[in-house]
Amino acid sequence: MPEPPPISGTTRLYAVLGDPIAQVQAPTLVNELFQAAGRDAALVPMHVTPEGLAEALAGLARLANLDGLLVTVPHKAAVARLASAVSPTVAITGTANALRRQPGGGWYAANFDGDGFIRGLRAQGHEPAGRTIALIGAGGAGSAIAAALLDAGADRLTLTDTNPARARDLASRLADSRPGRVHTTVTPALADADVAVNATPLGMAPGDPLPFAPHELPPGALVADIVMHPADTPLLRAAAALGHRVHQGHHMLRHQLDAYRDFFGW
Amino acid sequence: MPEPPPISGTTRLYAVLGDPIAQVQAPTLVNELFQAAGRDAALVPMHVTPEGLAEALAGLARLANLDGLLVTVPHKAAVARLASAVSPTVAITGTANALRRQPGGGWYAANFDGDGFIRGLRAQGHEPAGRTIALIGAGGAGSAIAAALLDAGADRLTLTDTNPARARDLASRLADSRPGRVHTTVTPALADADVAVNATPLGMAPGDPLPFAPHELPPGALVADIVMHPADTPLLRAAAALGHRVHQGHHMLRHQLDAYRDFFGW
Repeated sequence: MPEPPPISGTTRLYAVLGDPIAQVQAPTLVNELFQAAGRDAALVPMHVTPEGLAEALAGLARLANLDGLLVTVPHKAAVARLASAVSPTVAITGTANALRRQPGGGWYAANFDGDGFIRGLRAQGHEPAGRTIALIGAGGAGSAIAAALLDAGADRLTLTDTNPARARDLASRLADSRPGRVHTTVTPALADADVAVNATPLGMAPGDPLPFAPHELPPGALVADIVMHPADTPLLRAAAALGHRVHQGHHMLRHQLDAYRDFFGW
Repeated sequence: MPEPPPISGTTRLYAVLGDPIAQVQAPTLVNELFQAAGRDAALVPMHVTPEGLAEALAGLARLANLDGLLVTVPHKAAVARLASAVSPTVAITGTANALRRQPGGGWYAANFDGDGFIRGLRAQGHEPAGRTIALIGAGGAGSAIAAALLDAGADRLTLTDTNPARARDLASRLADSRPGRVHTTVTPALADADVAVNATPLGMAPGDPLPFAPHELPPGALVADIVMHPADTPLLRAAAALGHRVHQGHHMLRHQLDAYRDFFGW
Protein backbone atom coordinates (compact mmCIF):
# COMPACT_ATOMS: atom_id res chain seq x y z
CA MET A 1 0.00 0.00 0.00
CA PRO A 2 1.45 3.43 -0.88
CA GLU A 3 2.15 5.86 1.93
CA PRO A 4 -0.84 8.18 2.52
CA PRO A 5 -0.38 11.78 1.42
CA PRO A 6 0.57 13.72 4.56
CA ILE A 7 -1.90 16.17 6.06
CA SER A 8 -0.85 19.74 5.21
CA GLY A 9 -2.37 23.19 5.13
CA THR A 10 -4.08 22.45 1.80
CA THR A 11 -5.84 19.26 2.98
CA ARG A 12 -9.65 19.28 2.64
CA LEU A 13 -11.49 17.92 5.68
CA TYR A 14 -14.40 15.56 6.24
CA ALA A 15 -15.54 14.21 9.59
CA VAL A 16 -17.73 11.52 11.10
CA LEU A 17 -19.80 12.55 14.13
CA GLY A 18 -20.93 10.06 16.77
CA ASP A 19 -21.19 9.20 20.47
CA PRO A 20 -19.37 6.93 21.17
CA ILE A 21 -16.85 7.41 18.37
CA ALA A 22 -14.01 4.91 18.90
CA GLN A 23 -15.80 2.15 16.97
CA VAL A 24 -16.40 4.08 13.72
CA GLN A 25 -14.96 2.49 10.57
CA ALA A 26 -15.48 5.47 8.24
CA PRO A 27 -12.05 7.11 8.78
CA THR A 28 -10.21 3.93 7.80
CA LEU A 29 -12.42 3.17 4.79
CA VAL A 30 -12.70 6.70 3.42
CA ASN A 31 -9.05 7.62 3.96
CA GLU A 32 -8.08 4.48 2.04
CA LEU A 33 -10.32 5.70 -0.77
CA PHE A 34 -8.70 9.18 -0.69
CA GLN A 35 -5.28 7.59 -0.64
CA ALA A 36 -5.99 5.34 -3.63
CA ALA A 37 -7.25 8.39 -5.55
CA GLY A 38 -4.25 10.52 -4.53
CA ARG A 39 -6.68 13.02 -3.07
CA ASP A 40 -5.44 15.73 -0.62
CA ALA A 41 -8.26 15.10 1.87
CA ALA A 42 -8.75 13.44 5.25
CA LEU A 43 -11.75 12.18 7.19
CA VAL A 44 -11.41 12.47 10.98
CA PRO A 45 -13.56 11.22 13.87
CA MET A 46 -15.40 13.80 15.97
CA HIS A 47 -16.89 12.76 19.30
CA VAL A 48 -19.99 14.88 19.95
CA THR A 49 -22.61 14.28 22.64
CA PRO A 50 -26.31 14.96 21.97
CA GLU A 51 -26.20 18.13 24.14
CA GLY A 52 -23.36 19.54 22.07
CA LEU A 53 -24.62 18.61 18.61
CA ALA A 54 -26.35 21.84 17.52
CA GLU A 55 -23.43 24.02 18.63
CA ALA A 56 -20.91 21.64 17.05
CA LEU A 57 -22.74 21.72 13.69
CA ALA A 58 -22.90 25.52 13.76
CA GLY A 59 -19.18 25.69 14.50
CA LEU A 60 -18.22 23.12 11.87
CA ALA A 61 -20.18 25.12 9.28
CA ARG A 62 -17.59 27.88 9.93
CA LEU A 63 -14.67 25.71 8.79
CA ALA A 64 -14.24 26.72 5.16
CA ASN A 65 -12.04 23.71 4.33
CA LEU A 66 -14.48 21.17 5.82
CA ASP A 67 -16.67 19.92 2.98
CA GLY A 68 -18.92 17.33 4.53
CA LEU A 69 -19.93 15.23 7.51
CA LEU A 70 -20.94 11.64 8.05
CA VAL A 71 -23.23 11.09 11.00
CA THR A 72 -23.74 8.01 13.15
CA VAL A 73 -25.46 6.94 16.39
CA PRO A 74 -27.12 8.73 18.20
CA HIS A 75 -27.31 11.83 15.98
CA LYS A 76 -29.11 10.64 12.82
CA ALA A 77 -32.53 12.02 13.74
CA ALA A 78 -31.18 15.22 15.28
CA VAL A 79 -29.13 16.21 12.22
CA ALA A 80 -32.19 15.71 10.01
CA ARG A 81 -33.97 18.31 12.16
CA LEU A 82 -30.97 20.68 12.28
CA ALA A 83 -30.34 20.61 8.50
CA SER A 84 -31.55 23.52 6.39
CA ALA A 85 -32.59 21.17 3.53
CA VAL A 86 -33.16 17.38 3.29
CA SER A 87 -33.34 14.65 0.64
CA PRO A 88 -36.64 12.80 -0.10
CA THR A 89 -35.46 9.77 1.92
CA VAL A 90 -34.66 11.99 4.89
CA ALA A 91 -38.11 13.58 4.61
CA ILE A 92 -39.71 10.13 5.00
CA THR A 93 -37.39 8.56 7.57
CA GLY A 94 -36.60 11.64 9.62
CA THR A 95 -32.98 10.52 9.81
CA ALA A 96 -29.78 11.43 7.97
CA ASN A 97 -26.22 10.14 7.88
CA ALA A 98 -24.50 12.54 5.48
CA LEU A 99 -24.39 16.34 5.40
CA ARG A 100 -22.86 18.59 2.83
CA ARG A 101 -22.81 22.39 2.59
CA GLN A 102 -25.83 24.17 1.17
CA PRO A 103 -24.76 26.85 -1.33
CA GLY A 104 -26.78 29.41 0.67
CA GLY A 105 -25.37 28.30 4.05
CA GLY A 106 -26.29 25.55 6.49
CA TRP A 107 -26.32 21.82 5.77
CA TYR A 108 -28.13 19.59 3.24
CA ALA A 109 -28.94 16.18 4.77
CA ALA A 110 -29.11 12.83 2.98
CA ASN A 111 -29.32 9.21 4.13
CA PHE A 112 -27.39 6.39 2.49
CA ASP A 113 -27.79 3.73 5.20
CA GLY A 114 -30.67 2.02 3.43
CA ASP A 115 -29.06 2.21 0.00
CA GLY A 116 -25.83 0.79 1.40
CA PHE A 117 -27.64 -1.97 3.26
CA ILE A 118 -29.52 -3.15 0.14
CA ARG A 119 -26.38 -3.00 -2.03
CA GLY A 120 -24.50 -4.94 0.64
CA LEU A 121 -27.20 -7.64 0.87
CA ARG A 122 -27.27 -8.09 -2.90
CA ALA A 123 -23.47 -8.15 -3.15
CA GLN A 124 -23.57 -11.13 -0.75
CA GLY A 125 -26.25 -12.87 -2.82
CA HIS A 126 -29.22 -12.05 -0.55
CA GLU A 127 -32.12 -10.62 -2.59
CA PRO A 128 -34.72 -8.84 -0.43
CA ALA A 129 -37.43 -8.62 -3.14
CA GLY A 130 -40.44 -10.81 -2.33
CA ARG A 131 -39.22 -11.63 1.19
CA THR A 132 -40.89 -11.42 4.60
CA ILE A 133 -38.59 -9.35 6.80
CA ALA A 134 -38.50 -8.63 10.54
CA LEU A 135 -36.68 -5.38 11.28
CA ILE A 136 -35.72 -4.74 14.91
CA GLY A 137 -34.92 -1.09 15.67
CA ALA A 138 -36.83 1.84 14.19
CA GLY A 139 -34.22 4.52 14.98
CA GLY A 140 -31.83 6.26 12.60
CA ALA A 141 -30.46 3.33 10.63
CA GLY A 142 -33.63 1.26 11.04
CA SER A 143 -35.82 3.93 9.43
CA ALA A 144 -33.59 4.22 6.39
CA ILE A 145 -33.26 0.44 6.03
CA ALA A 146 -37.05 0.03 6.29
CA ALA A 147 -37.66 2.52 3.47
CA ALA A 148 -34.97 0.93 1.30
CA LEU A 149 -36.25 -2.63 1.88
CA LEU A 150 -39.70 -1.56 0.69
CA ASP A 151 -38.20 0.26 -2.31
CA ALA A 152 -36.23 -2.92 -3.08
CA GLY A 153 -39.45 -4.96 -3.21
CA ALA A 154 -39.71 -6.61 0.21
CA ASP A 155 -43.12 -8.32 0.33
CA ARG A 156 -43.89 -7.84 4.02
CA LEU A 157 -41.97 -5.78 6.59
CA THR A 158 -42.61 -6.04 10.33
CA LEU A 159 -41.13 -3.33 12.56
CA THR A 160 -40.34 -3.71 16.26
CA ASP A 161 -38.76 -1.22 18.63
CA THR A 162 -38.36 -1.13 22.41
CA ASN A 163 -40.30 2.13 22.02
CA PRO A 164 -43.48 0.83 20.28
CA ALA A 165 -44.66 4.36 19.44
CA ARG A 166 -41.47 4.92 17.46
CA ALA A 167 -42.15 1.80 15.38
CA ARG A 168 -45.79 2.82 14.80
CA ASP A 169 -44.78 6.36 13.76
CA LEU A 170 -42.30 5.02 11.24
CA ALA A 171 -44.82 2.48 9.90
CA SER A 172 -47.39 5.21 9.39
CA ARG A 173 -44.94 7.43 7.48
CA LEU A 174 -43.86 4.50 5.30
CA ALA A 175 -47.43 3.31 4.68
CA ASP A 176 -48.36 6.61 3.01
CA SER A 177 -46.44 5.66 -0.10
CA ARG A 178 -46.32 1.87 0.39
CA PRO A 179 -49.74 0.76 1.71
CA GLY A 180 -50.38 -2.77 3.00
CA ARG A 181 -46.81 -4.02 3.29
CA VAL A 182 -45.71 -2.52 6.65
CA HIS A 183 -46.78 -3.82 10.07
CA THR A 184 -45.61 -3.37 13.65
CA THR A 185 -45.41 -5.84 16.52
CA VAL A 186 -44.40 -5.42 20.15
CA THR A 187 -42.16 -8.50 20.01
CA PRO A 188 -40.24 -9.40 16.84
CA ALA A 189 -42.28 -11.40 14.30
CA LEU A 190 -39.63 -14.06 13.73
CA ALA A 191 -41.62 -17.30 13.21
CA ASP A 192 -42.29 -16.69 9.50
CA ALA A 193 -39.44 -14.32 8.65
CA ASP A 194 -37.10 -15.01 5.75
CA VAL A 195 -34.80 -12.27 6.99
CA ALA A 196 -34.31 -10.71 10.46
CA VAL A 197 -32.32 -7.48 10.72
CA ASN A 198 -30.82 -5.97 13.87
CA ALA A 199 -30.88 -2.19 13.40
CA THR A 200 -30.27 -1.41 17.09
CA PRO A 201 -26.86 -0.71 18.65
CA LEU A 202 -27.16 -3.86 20.81
CA GLY A 203 -24.01 -5.89 20.37
CA MET A 204 -21.58 -2.95 20.39
CA ALA A 205 -20.99 -3.10 24.14
CA PRO A 206 -19.74 -6.23 25.92
CA GLY A 207 -22.59 -7.76 27.89
CA ASP A 208 -25.40 -6.30 25.72
CA PRO A 209 -28.43 -8.61 25.53
CA LEU A 210 -29.25 -10.06 22.10
CA PRO A 211 -31.64 -7.72 20.18
CA PHE A 212 -33.87 -10.75 19.39
CA ALA A 213 -33.86 -14.53 19.83
CA PRO A 214 -32.51 -16.19 16.66
CA HIS A 215 -33.82 -19.64 17.73
CA GLU A 216 -37.35 -18.37 16.99
CA LEU A 217 -36.50 -18.05 13.28
CA PRO A 218 -37.38 -20.81 10.78
CA PRO A 219 -34.55 -22.92 9.31
CA GLY A 220 -32.73 -21.22 6.46
CA ALA A 221 -33.45 -17.68 7.65
CA LEU A 222 -30.90 -14.92 7.14
CA VAL A 223 -29.78 -12.87 10.16
CA ALA A 224 -28.31 -9.46 9.31
CA ASP A 225 -26.66 -7.08 11.76
CA ILE A 226 -25.78 -3.42 11.32
CA VAL A 227 -23.33 -3.44 14.26
CA MET A 228 -19.88 -3.27 12.68
CA HIS A 229 -17.60 -3.67 15.66
CA PRO A 230 -17.19 -6.52 16.51
CA ALA A 231 -17.75 -8.00 13.05
CA ASP A 232 -19.02 -11.23 14.61
CA THR A 233 -21.56 -9.90 17.07
CA PRO A 234 -23.03 -12.15 19.75
CA LEU A 235 -26.23 -12.17 17.66
CA LEU A 236 -24.45 -13.38 14.52
CA ARG A 237 -22.48 -15.99 16.47
CA ALA A 238 -25.69 -17.32 18.04
CA ALA A 239 -27.45 -17.34 14.65
CA ALA A 240 -24.56 -19.15 12.94
CA ALA A 241 -24.47 -21.74 15.73
CA LEU A 242 -28.14 -22.44 14.96
CA GLY A 243 -27.35 -22.95 11.26
CA HIS A 244 -28.74 -19.64 10.01
CA ARG A 245 -27.01 -17.62 7.31
CA VAL A 246 -25.49 -14.39 8.65
CA HIS A 247 -24.68 -10.97 7.16
CA GLN A 248 -22.19 -8.68 8.93
CA GLY A 249 -22.60 -4.97 9.53
CA HIS A 250 -19.59 -3.76 7.56
CA HIS A 251 -21.24 -4.54 4.21
CA MET A 252 -23.69 -1.66 4.72
CA LEU A 253 -20.89 0.88 5.19
CA ARG A 254 -18.63 -0.51 2.47
CA HIS A 255 -21.44 -0.33 -0.06
CA GLN A 256 -22.27 3.23 0.93
CA LEU A 257 -18.91 4.45 -0.34
CA ASP A 258 -20.15 4.70 -3.94
CA ALA A 259 -23.13 6.77 -2.80
CA TYR A 260 -20.86 9.05 -0.70
CA ARG A 261 -18.51 9.42 -3.65
CA ASP A 262 -21.34 10.82 -5.79
CA PHE A 263 -22.77 12.94 -2.98
CA PHE A 264 -19.50 14.60 -1.97
CA GLY A 265 -17.90 14.63 -5.42
CA TRP A 266 -14.97 12.38 -4.41
CA MET B 1 10.28 7.01 7.44
CA PRO B 2 7.71 4.62 8.92
CA GLU B 3 4.16 4.76 7.61
CA PRO B 4 2.01 7.08 9.74
CA PRO B 5 -0.57 5.38 11.96
CA PRO B 6 -3.86 5.56 10.05
CA ILE B 7 -6.62 7.80 11.33
CA SER B 8 -9.31 5.71 13.04
CA GLY B 9 -12.19 6.21 15.45
CA THR B 10 -9.79 6.33 18.41
CA THR B 11 -7.56 9.09 16.99
CA ARG B 12 -7.26 12.23 19.16
CA LEU B 13 -7.56 15.50 17.25
CA TYR B 14 -5.69 18.79 17.24
CA ALA B 15 -6.18 21.60 14.75
CA VAL B 16 -4.52 24.78 13.53
CA LEU B 17 -6.85 27.71 12.83
CA GLY B 18 -5.99 30.45 10.34
CA ASP B 19 -7.11 32.55 7.38
CA PRO B 20 -5.57 31.82 4.92
CA ILE B 21 -4.68 28.26 5.90
CA ALA B 22 -2.93 26.62 2.94
CA GLN B 23 0.50 27.91 4.01
CA VAL B 24 0.52 26.51 7.57
CA GLN B 25 3.42 24.22 8.44
CA ALA B 26 2.06 22.91 11.75
CA PRO B 27 0.22 19.84 10.35
CA THR B 28 3.38 18.53 8.71
CA LEU B 29 5.65 19.24 11.69
CA VAL B 30 3.31 18.05 14.43
CA ASN B 31 2.09 14.94 12.60
CA GLU B 32 5.75 13.95 12.08
CA LEU B 33 6.20 14.32 15.84
CA PHE B 34 3.09 12.18 16.54
CA GLN B 35 4.31 9.62 14.04
CA ALA B 36 7.77 9.39 15.58
CA ALA B 37 6.17 8.90 19.00
CA GLY B 38 3.69 6.31 17.70
CA ARG B 39 0.88 8.49 19.00
CA ASP B 40 -2.73 7.92 17.81
CA ALA B 41 -3.34 11.63 17.14
CA ALA B 42 -3.58 13.95 14.15
CA LEU B 43 -3.35 17.71 13.67
CA VAL B 44 -5.53 19.07 10.86
CA PRO B 45 -5.83 22.52 9.24
CA MET B 46 -9.05 24.49 9.82
CA HIS B 47 -9.77 27.51 7.66
CA VAL B 48 -11.80 30.00 9.72
CA THR B 49 -12.53 33.63 8.81
CA PRO B 50 -12.64 36.35 11.48
CA GLU B 51 -16.47 36.53 11.29
CA GLY B 52 -16.75 32.82 12.00
CA LEU B 53 -14.15 32.53 14.75
CA ALA B 54 -16.32 32.79 17.87
CA GLU B 55 -18.86 30.30 16.57
CA ALA B 56 -16.12 27.95 15.37
CA LEU B 57 -14.42 27.98 18.80
CA ALA B 58 -17.71 27.29 20.56
CA GLY B 59 -18.41 24.39 18.21
CA LEU B 60 -14.90 22.94 18.48
CA ALA B 61 -15.23 23.00 22.29
CA ARG B 62 -18.03 20.45 21.76
CA LEU B 63 -15.69 17.89 20.12
CA ALA B 64 -14.75 15.64 23.03
CA ASN B 65 -11.83 14.05 21.16
CA LEU B 66 -10.31 17.40 20.14
CA ASP B 67 -7.70 18.26 22.77
CA GLY B 68 -6.16 21.50 21.58
CA LEU B 69 -5.82 24.20 18.96
CA LEU B 70 -2.95 26.12 17.46
CA VAL B 71 -3.88 29.58 16.20
CA THR B 72 -2.28 31.67 13.49
CA VAL B 73 -2.92 34.88 11.52
CA PRO B 74 -5.32 36.73 11.84
CA HIS B 75 -6.85 35.17 14.97
CA LYS B 76 -4.16 35.55 17.65
CA ALA B 77 -5.68 38.59 19.35
CA ALA B 78 -9.29 37.41 18.97
CA VAL B 79 -8.67 34.03 20.62
CA ALA B 80 -7.00 35.76 23.58
CA ARG B 81 -10.26 37.69 24.09
CA LEU B 82 -12.47 34.63 23.54
CA ALA B 83 -10.54 32.37 25.96
CA SER B 84 -11.92 31.80 29.44
CA ALA B 85 -8.43 31.90 31.00
CA VAL B 86 -5.03 33.13 29.78
CA SER B 87 -1.32 32.69 30.56
CA PRO B 88 0.77 35.62 31.96
CA THR B 89 2.33 36.22 28.51
CA VAL B 90 -1.12 36.39 26.93
CA ALA B 91 -2.22 38.85 29.59
CA ILE B 92 0.63 41.19 28.56
CA THR B 93 0.60 40.73 24.80
CA GLY B 94 -3.13 40.28 24.28
CA THR B 95 -2.39 37.51 21.78
CA ALA B 96 -2.37 33.72 21.91
CA ASN B 97 -1.37 30.92 19.59
CA ALA B 98 -2.29 27.79 21.55
CA LEU B 99 -5.53 26.81 23.27
CA ARG B 100 -6.24 23.80 25.40
CA ARG B 101 -9.39 22.79 27.27
CA GLN B 102 -10.08 24.33 30.64
CA PRO B 103 -11.18 21.68 33.15
CA GLY B 104 -14.31 23.74 33.88
CA GLY B 105 -15.11 24.32 30.18
CA GLY B 106 -13.95 26.84 27.62
CA TRP B 107 -10.37 27.39 26.46
CA TYR B 108 -7.09 28.30 28.24
CA ALA B 109 -4.89 30.46 25.99
CA ALA B 110 -1.09 30.56 25.86
CA ASN B 111 1.46 32.07 23.51
CA PHE B 112 4.65 30.30 22.45
CA ASP B 113 5.60 32.48 19.48
CA GLY B 114 8.07 34.51 21.50
CA ASP B 115 9.55 31.52 23.27
CA GLY B 116 9.96 29.70 19.94
CA PHE B 117 11.50 32.74 18.29
CA ILE B 118 14.15 33.17 21.01
CA ARG B 119 14.97 29.45 21.07
CA GLY B 120 15.25 29.50 17.27
CA LEU B 121 17.58 32.53 17.28
CA ARG B 122 19.84 30.96 19.89
CA ALA B 123 19.90 27.60 18.10
CA GLN B 124 21.27 29.47 15.06
CA GLY B 125 23.91 31.22 17.15
CA HIS B 126 22.18 34.60 17.39
CA GLU B 127 22.10 35.85 21.01
CA PRO B 128 19.55 38.66 21.55
CA ALA B 129 20.82 39.69 25.00
CA GLY B 130 22.45 43.13 24.98
CA ARG B 131 21.33 43.89 21.41
CA THR B 132 19.50 46.84 19.85
CA ILE B 133 16.55 45.41 17.99
CA ALA B 134 14.05 46.89 15.51
CA LEU B 135 10.80 44.94 15.49
CA ILE B 136 8.38 45.64 12.63
CA GLY B 137 4.82 44.48 13.29
CA ALA B 138 3.09 44.79 16.67
CA GLY B 139 0.28 42.30 15.93
CA GLY B 140 -0.13 38.76 17.23
CA ALA B 141 3.33 37.34 16.68
CA GLY B 142 5.05 40.71 17.07
CA SER B 143 3.64 41.26 20.56
CA ALA B 144 4.81 37.89 21.78
CA ILE B 145 8.25 38.29 20.20
CA ALA B 146 8.62 41.74 21.76
CA ALA B 147 7.90 40.41 25.27
CA ALA B 148 10.24 37.46 24.77
CA LEU B 149 13.09 39.64 23.40
CA LEU B 150 12.90 41.81 26.52
CA ASP B 151 12.75 38.73 28.78
CA ALA B 152 15.81 37.42 26.90
CA GLY B 153 17.78 40.57 27.73
CA ALA B 154 17.51 42.75 24.62
CA ASP B 155 19.05 46.12 25.51
CA ARG B 156 16.83 48.38 23.40
CA LEU B 157 13.69 47.42 21.45
CA THR B 158 12.07 49.74 18.91
CA LEU B 159 8.56 48.89 17.75
CA THR B 160 7.01 49.98 14.45
CA ASP B 161 3.61 49.16 13.03
CA THR B 162 1.62 50.54 10.08
CA ASN B 163 -0.92 51.30 12.80
CA PRO B 164 1.20 53.53 15.14
CA ALA B 165 -1.38 53.36 17.93
CA ARG B 166 -1.01 49.58 18.00
CA ALA B 167 2.77 49.91 18.48
CA ARG B 168 2.31 52.53 21.21
CA ASP B 169 -0.28 50.39 23.05
CA LEU B 170 2.04 47.40 23.05
CA ALA B 171 5.01 49.53 24.18
CA SER B 172 3.01 50.88 27.07
CA ARG B 173 1.93 47.40 28.22
CA LEU B 174 5.52 46.14 27.96
CA ALA B 175 7.00 49.18 29.71
CA ASP B 176 5.02 48.50 32.89
CA SER B 177 7.33 45.62 33.76
CA ARG B 178 10.35 46.60 31.64
CA PRO B 179 10.81 50.40 31.93
CA GLY B 180 13.24 52.33 29.70
CA ARG B 181 14.01 49.65 27.12
CA VAL B 182 11.00 49.93 24.78
CA HIS B 183 10.44 52.70 22.23
CA THR B 184 8.22 53.24 19.22
CA THR B 185 8.91 54.94 15.91
CA VAL B 186 6.68 55.65 12.90
CA THR B 187 9.34 54.38 10.48
CA PRO B 188 11.62 51.47 11.44
CA ALA B 189 14.71 52.49 13.45
CA LEU B 190 17.19 50.58 11.34
CA ALA B 191 20.33 52.76 11.30
CA ASP B 192 21.69 51.52 14.64
CA ALA B 193 19.94 48.11 14.85
CA ASP B 194 21.90 44.94 15.48
CA VAL B 195 18.83 42.90 14.59
CA ALA B 196 15.73 43.72 12.51
CA VAL B 197 12.72 41.41 12.74
CA ASN B 198 9.78 41.22 10.33
CA ALA B 199 6.75 40.22 12.41
CA THR B 200 4.20 41.22 9.73
CA PRO B 201 2.67 38.86 7.14
CA LEU B 202 4.34 40.81 4.31
CA GLY B 203 6.20 38.36 2.10
CA MET B 204 3.55 35.62 2.19
CA ALA B 205 1.77 36.87 -0.93
CA PRO B 206 3.55 37.33 -4.28
CA GLY B 207 3.99 41.04 -4.96
CA ASP B 208 3.93 42.10 -1.29
CA PRO B 209 6.15 45.14 -0.62
CA LEU B 210 9.13 44.60 1.68
CA PRO B 211 8.17 45.23 5.34
CA PHE B 212 11.27 47.45 5.72
CA ALA B 213 14.33 48.53 3.71
CA PRO B 214 17.29 46.28 4.60
CA HIS B 215 19.78 48.66 2.95
CA GLU B 216 19.20 51.07 5.87
CA LEU B 217 20.75 48.56 8.30
CA PRO B 218 24.41 48.79 9.36
CA PRO B 219 26.85 46.17 8.05
CA GLY B 220 26.74 42.91 9.97
CA ALA B 221 23.11 43.27 11.03
CA LEU B 222 20.88 40.22 11.33
CA VAL B 223 17.55 40.18 9.45
CA ALA B 224 14.97 37.76 10.84
CA ASP B 225 11.63 36.93 9.26
CA ILE B 226 8.64 35.16 10.79
CA VAL B 227 7.09 34.42 7.37
CA MET B 228 7.60 30.68 6.84
CA HIS B 229 6.37 30.21 3.30
CA PRO B 230 8.39 30.88 1.19
CA ALA B 231 11.42 30.10 3.37
CA ASP B 232 13.50 32.63 1.41
CA THR B 233 11.21 35.63 1.50
CA PRO B 234 11.90 38.66 -0.73
CA LEU B 235 13.07 40.44 2.45
CA LEU B 236 15.61 37.73 3.29
CA ARG B 237 16.81 37.52 -0.31
CA ALA B 238 17.32 41.31 -0.41
CA ALA B 239 19.11 41.26 2.97
CA ALA B 240 21.38 38.39 1.95
CA ALA B 241 22.25 40.19 -1.30
CA LEU B 242 23.38 43.15 0.84
CA GLY B 243 25.64 40.88 2.91
CA HIS B 244 23.45 40.74 6.01
CA ARG B 245 22.99 37.58 8.02
CA VAL B 246 19.47 36.15 7.69
CA HIS B 247 17.22 34.01 9.90
CA GLN B 248 14.25 32.16 8.35
CA GLY B 249 10.76 31.95 9.78
CA HIS B 250 10.57 28.20 10.23
CA HIS B 251 12.99 28.25 13.17
CA MET B 252 10.34 29.94 15.33
CA LEU B 253 7.79 27.17 14.70
CA ARG B 254 10.27 24.30 14.91
CA HIS B 255 11.49 25.52 18.28
CA GLN B 256 7.95 25.89 19.58
CA LEU B 257 7.41 22.16 19.36
CA ASP B 258 9.05 21.53 22.74
CA ALA B 259 6.81 24.14 24.33
CA TYR B 260 3.71 22.63 22.68
CA ARG B 261 4.77 19.19 23.83
CA ASP B 262 4.75 20.33 27.45
CA PHE B 263 1.56 22.36 27.08
CA PHE B 264 -0.51 19.64 25.40
CA GLY B 265 1.13 16.67 27.13
CA TRP B 266 2.46 15.11 23.89
